[in-house]
Amino acid sequence: VVQNVLKANDELAARNRQRLHAAGVLSIDLMGAPGCGKTSLIEAVLQRVGPALRIGVIAGDLATQRDADRIARFSNHVVQINTGKGCHLEAHHVTAALDRIELAKLDLLFIENVGNLICPVGFDLGQDLKVGVFSATGGDDKAAKHPYIVIESALLLLNMIDLLPHVRFNRDLFLEDIHRLNPAAQVLELSAATGAGVDAFVQWIQTQREMRKA
Amino acid sequence: VVQNVLKANDELAARNRQRLHAAGVLSIDLMGAPGCGKTSLIEAVLQRVGPALRIGVIAGDLATQRDADRIARFSNHVVQINTGKGCHLEAHHVTAALDRIELAKLDLLFIENVGNLICPVGFDLGQDLKVGVFSATGGDDKAAKHPYIVIESALLLLNMIDLLPHVRFNRDLFLEDIHRLNPAAQVLELSAATGAGVDAFVQWIQTQREMRKA
Repeated sequence: VVQNVLKANDELAARNRQRLHAAGVLSIDLMGAPGCGKTSLIEAVLQRVGPALRIGVIAGDLATQRDADRIARFSNHVVQINTGKGCHLEAHHVTAALDRIELAKLDLLFIENVGNLICPVGFDLGQDLKVGVFSATGGDDKAAKHPYIVIESALLLLNMIDLLPHVRFNRDLFLEDIHRLNPAAQVLELSAATGAGVDAFVQWIQTQREMRKA
Repeated sequence: VVQNVLKANDELAARNRQRLHAAGVLSIDLMGAPGCGKTSLIEAVLQRVGPALRIGVIAGDLATQRDADRIARFSNHVVQINTGKGCHLEAHHVTAALDRIELAKLDLLFIENVGNLICPVGFDLGQDLKVGVFSATGGDDKAAKHPYIVIESALLLLNMIDLLPHVRFNRDLFLEDIHRLNPAAQVLELSAATGAGVDAFVQWIQTQREMRKA
């Protein structure tokens, strides 16, 4: 049963990917624990880039429209997906959301996954890149405890660095765990709240776009 | 398939419950997002109660022994369960852990679930009580976005209140969401880091023990 579900998911994901590529849209599956700051980070990016990078957002949550409402203050291209009891997004959620987005008007699509460090990792949505988000208040052990998100992510973000002075967090241990699990992963440290480091994240996204055009 | 898995789980959970009750051990399934401070809270309780309340801990994580190592500084009765890619504990994990714990030496068992606000909620482990943990840095919207953990928990904790001055968090909204979803739920605000409010949590546990003896 599980194999069939995954196979059906992969077929839909491939179609999503084709559709996004045909429109020239780079897509990022943003994964992380509930409360690590995924929505705040998207807001910070939207506030920074303006019309130079046209961004759409698919926001996944079990319940409520709250993320879409927050993001709608900065983007006209946002779709909320409510999964009910579903612990992760699947390709069919993204397919349904793409039907409601004008891809021709976008350069970048953030797919904000359901807040969960575990279940989203195994599901291809059709994204170009998976980005994993950790937070400084979540503890320095979270990479080691969640190896699969580290292994599958092209970029790992450490958010909430503005709170580092107020919590115990061993940066060296955290970075060591990441590099041991995924030597190819890039790591950026930032704060969606203060904006520190967000420009570097935007720059990373632009580089990914240019690499794909070339 | 799902129905059969849940049925098998419920049967094992009932046996776990019987075994814990026969030994006079109150058990709490502690659920919350990765990084909300479940382990720190258990440490804070252990440091506070001393021998007056004999506490065992089953610590669930995908990988590493780190939680068990931390807790072992304060308790001789700790078992680490590694679930691999499993996003929640199931009753069979607890059964296996109980085989390695001397229940006769305990008054209370914390079952620290895998860090996840979603998947653990639907699985009975044989616990007496489910307690859900949120954190002040995780945002005031997490109760509304995760209604099932709110509905299923007897007590909801808001941890990391020492960080409230440094983050945006609307307490009224957070509490309103909880009371709307689960009018019977109790809520305690605390900080495992500073110890604020931990005594009230210990008192709540003692009250639960007394209610069950009466």
